[in-house]
Amino acid sequence: MLLKRLLVGLPLKTKQAVHERLPKRLALAVFASDPLSSVAYATEEILLVLVLAGSAVVFWSVPVSLTIILLLTILTISYRQIIYEYPEGGGAYTVAKSNLGQLPGLTAAAALMIDYVLTVAVSVAAGVAALTSAAPALFPHRVALGLLAIVMIVVINLRGVRESGRIFATPTYLFVGTILLMVGVGLVQILTGQSFRAEPRQVPAVESLTLFLLLRAFSSGCTALTGVETISNGVTAFKRPESKNAGMTMAGMAAILGTMFLGISVLAYHFGILPREDETVVSQIARAIFGEGPLYYLVQVTTMLILILAANSAFAGFPRLASILARDSYMPHQMALLGDRLVFSNGVIILGLFSCALIVLFHGNTHALIPLYAVGVFLSFTLSQAGMVRRWMTKRGRHWRKKLVVNGMGAVATGLATLIIATTKFVHGAWIVVVLLPLLILWFRSIHAHYIAVAEQVALERDHRPPLPRRNTVVVPISGVNRAVIRAVDYARGRSADVRAVLVDVDPEETARIQIQWAQWGCGVDLVVLPSPYRSVVGSLLDYIEELLEKDHNGWVTVVIPEILPARWWQNILHNQRALILKAALLFKDRVILTDVPFHLER
Amino acid sequence: MLLKRLLVGLPLKTKQAVHERLPKRLALAVFASDPLSSVAYATEEILLVLVLAGSAVVFWSVPVSLTIILLLTILTISYRQIIYEYPEGGGAYTVAKSNLGQLPGLTAAAALMIDYVLTVAVSVAAGVAALTSAAPALFPHRVALGLLAIVMIVVINLRGVRESGRIFATPTYLFVGTILLMVGVGLVQILTGQSFRAEPRQVPAVESLTLFLLLRAFSSGCTALTGVETISNGVTAFKRPESKNAGMTMAGMAAILGTMFLGISVLAYHFGILPREDETVVSQIARAIFGEGPLYYLVQVTTMLILILAANSAFAGFPRLASILARDSYMPHQMALLGDRLVFSNGVIILGLFSCALIVLFHGNTHALIPLYAVGVFLSFTLSQAGMVRRWMTKRGRHWRKKLVVNGMGAVATGLATLIIATTKFVHGAWIVVVLLPLLILWFRSIHAHYIAVAEQVALERDHRPPLPRRNTVVVPISGVNRAVIRAVDYARGRSADVRAVLVDVDPEETARIQIQWAQWGCGVDLVVLPSPYRSVVGSLLDYIEELLEKDHNGWVTVVIPEILPARWWQNILHNQRALILKAALLFKDRVILTDVPFHLER
Repeated sequence: MLLKRLLVGLPLKTKQAVHERLPKRLALAVFASDPLSSVAYATEEILLVLVLAGSAVVFWSVPVSLTIILLLTILTISYRQIIYEYPEGGGAYTVAKSNLGQLPGLTAAAALMIDYVLTVAVSVAAGVAALTSAAPALFPHRVALGLLAIVMIVVINLRGVRESGRIFATPTYLFVGTILLMVGVGLVQILTGQSFRAEPRQVPAVESLTLFLLLRAFSSGCTALTGVETISNGVTAFKRPESKNAGMTMAGMAAILGTMFLGISVLAYHFGILPREDETVVSQIARAIFGEGPLYYLVQVTTMLILILAANSAFAGFPRLASILARDSYMPHQMALLGDRLVFSNGVIILGLFSCALIVLFHGNTHALIPLYAVGVFLSFTLSQAGMVRRWMTKRGRHWRKKLVVNGMGAVATGLATLIIATTKFVHGAWIVVVLLPLLILWFRSIHAHYIAVAEQVALERDHRPPLPRRNTVVVPISGVNRAVIRAVDYARGRSADVRAVLVDVDPEETARIQIQWAQWGCGVDLVVLPSPYRSVVGSLLDYIEELLEKDHNGWVTVVIPEILPARWWQNILHNQRALILKAALLFKDRVILTDVPFHLER
Repeated sequence: MLLKRLLVGLPLKTKQAVHERLPKRLALAVFASDPLSSVAYATEEILLVLVLAGSAVVFWSVPVSLTIILLLTILTISYRQIIYEYPEGGGAYTVAKSNLGQLPGLTAAAALMIDYVLTVAVSVAAGVAALTSAAPALFPHRVALGLLAIVMIVVINLRGVRESGRIFATPTYLFVGTILLMVGVGLVQILTGQSFRAEPRQVPAVESLTLFLLLRAFSSGCTALTGVETISNGVTAFKRPESKNAGMTMAGMAAILGTMFLGISVLAYHFGILPREDETVVSQIARAIFGEGPLYYLVQVTTMLILILAANSAFAGFPRLASILARDSYMPHQMALLGDRLVFSNGVIILGLFSCALIVLFHGNTHALIPLYAVGVFLSFTLSQAGMVRRWMTKRGRHWRKKLVVNGMGAVATGLATLIIATTKFVHGAWIVVVLLPLLILWFRSIHAHYIAVAEQVALERDHRPPLPRRNTVVVPISGVNRAVIRAVDYARGRSADVRAVLVDVDPEETARIQIQWAQWGCGVDLVVLPSPYRSVVGSLLDYIEELLEKDHNGWVTVVIPEILPARWWQNILHNQRALILKAALLFKDRVILTDVPFHLER
């Protein structure tokens, strides 16, 4: 408990909830660290595909990057419309469900959930790669470093969202500043003629440059756009006016992202940089521009920090989505409980566990995780854009034709991207997501069906009258006469007129002894002795209770169990073995009420 | 359940217990398979030590064997006196405790328990070795084979002791017959001059022949005597007159054992046989006498069977000892419960688990287990003989001087043997037993101390009067209005005049809605609304209950929990999370009574 308070802080009152709103400055840090940080690996992933066709064709990385930036522009414009239309938070789930129906909504939700987990895993893995580029000695410990980072982020998030915003602001702005400085200095060097175009080292082609390969490079680069939608999920976390602030934050984020991504792609081409196993592309660029000086290390450190912290976007988004699903009864209801610190703590913890599992399974390797990534994001993009198109067609309203065209373009562009990613990455890992999606949807639906069935079963009918009092027979199973037993009998006789102590006759001598003692201590309660030729104490008791239930088809049977509670946990194996078996057997009988009367031992 | 019945058989009535007595013929098979079977490895273990001083000195195995047979004779005579003196079963624990006191008794008990586990492990490992001598292809699977054998024996023993006797009689007598035949044929071959003394292959000495080495050989050979005492533990399992039958069985067993052991040692010397890694000594003798014919395979098969089944002696002895210890409160009481088939099932299962663990830890290797063996047995021999000496000194009676001399000789002989074994085998593994013994004794004593403390705490005083009726406040925590809640309130209002439904106010709108519903459905029970600024439902409830307890320092507080029981187990994660936390927190409060009112879902 003390440890929890130290790590997580004191509990917050419900009333304090409204103060946990973010100004734009902090919101950008919390929600945009994911898309911004992806520039750290997006160019590298494009080059990794292109280089298969030899080092001669890597100039294609620039047009591929430009195409992705075009997609980013379309996406930003169409998402701003969602932010204004859904000020209460327009995640893909909400938009798809309210406009297209349950199944598309759940598909979007499942896609997003998978993606949040992958965001954490990919970002942390890439962050560790930035660190090991600068400090190769840490390379063998990359899995441990990744797990450590996730645990750190979980703790920070359990403290609550505003404090997270503060913790995340500095590294995010440092990263943006450093990368823009690097791009700026690089461009100045080029324009002033201080640096010349370098040819990359010769790498032979193992595949020919086909359209499929270009599309594969495009798919890899699309990871740059993951997380762009996070702001639209979290509109309610912005200060008022929420939609306007969120929209402006989104536009600003897109501008910064586009600039950095294009800059890195152009510089990588200019310096003839190819991906290497032991050093990231960004690290190579920084080394080329800044040399081995302090600015190089600043780039690596801020890249690592933003990547590790980028995982935080998912920790803002996943618990929110899980709580919305839980409120709609598609996830266990406890996912919707606000914790001490006004955070959906269960969601935070579950996301942490799953992403740790991915880091371990994929040995903390970014390239192995990338093919699983982006399918889900683009599927959810497509569903929410399609949902908006449907919305404008039915709702209409001011400028609806213009808005329809914007979202229509968004839907077509993201739909195409989804198809391209799923096709070109299928054998490399996207199949895992394709298999997982329907399973998750089935799980959501089975939970929903269960909660609906429960609600029907516990619902009170309109003409339901308060029930009439029923008879209650109290049974106290005993195996001796002692304080614990007398305490239970004392409790029981106040509860009903019909109380019986019940003894199973295992040893006739012992039974006779107990009967004599009972006359003195029994508080006047009847002692029933049950025969038990097979020495099954629990079996005989169950038969007796069954008999009582059959005698009165409406009455309760209360079983009062004298339970000795030891002072130390290990002593439990020395007590109550039979009580446990009896309780387990009685749990499934209707009209049987279990009551424990504890007797606490002091030593 | 069906599987259990198929494996174990139908339950037996308590009255059938007296019929589970064994005639001498069957008792020999059940109790003597352990000592008899040890001739299969005792000679080999002697030779394994002697050969360290070179093949020239292996003739010492015969005098060493003769010394062990002398020890056997002393032991048999002195144990017969115990059988007559303790017809109710004179295990080392009983004899040592009643004559020497608690600590020697517990020492004997701990030594025996360790030894029972080792008997199972050593016998099974040696049995598997007999099998793999004849069928070397099975050698890599020896651990799996050992585990399989133990599982088989556990199942047989859970069926009950008389049926075990039947199953074990045939192999035991076949083994005795085959070995005696082998020894007889071998002697005839020698006497009729058909076979000549063979020199063993040359093995260089790595140690010199010292007294210490001879004593080590003697220690190894003493494993032949393990299990000799089992009969004295199980006198009550014999047909009447128990003592006479048990005494005769013991004498018969000793005679057979001595003959076989000496015969094997002499033949091994005559044929110049030395231990080999891949073939047992008995297998080599049988091959020399019978060739590769069917009689050779009969020796191997019966050896394997008797060894695998020898483990059964321990399965008769361990649960009996554990039940006696449990009745004296030195072991958990459930060890004294007779199962369905009149067997102490818990003891059987625990012995099975521990011996499986040994087989796995020691890779099913007999030679690795042997040094741990015999220390415990001889320690318990010594303690019971010393106990008898003390008994004759205090009790006296007819011929007490003669009896004292007999047991005195036994005590001195076994005490010397214990010292020799512990010293010569210490570094080879006996230290494990020396460490384990005091730990076990401590464990026994802490259990005993706990049961005594409990008995004192629950004891009723002579002047104790039945308690006066106390006030009872019933609290029903609710979070909504539904059938499950109404059911719980309906149950509660019949139990006490003072019933309150308690609602924690997490969401004011929801609270207002519930209050309106309560007016209609509440059965007239008061609804208490608790404020909860920090949204901690369980915390607020606990505070409220604490308050009630403080208001009336003598009264009960009954917490009636409406519990929704799902139709399928996995649905439990969707329900009752708070109820579970609440129950765990309330379990440790005095005067708080937990009552579950179940509401069973049907789908």
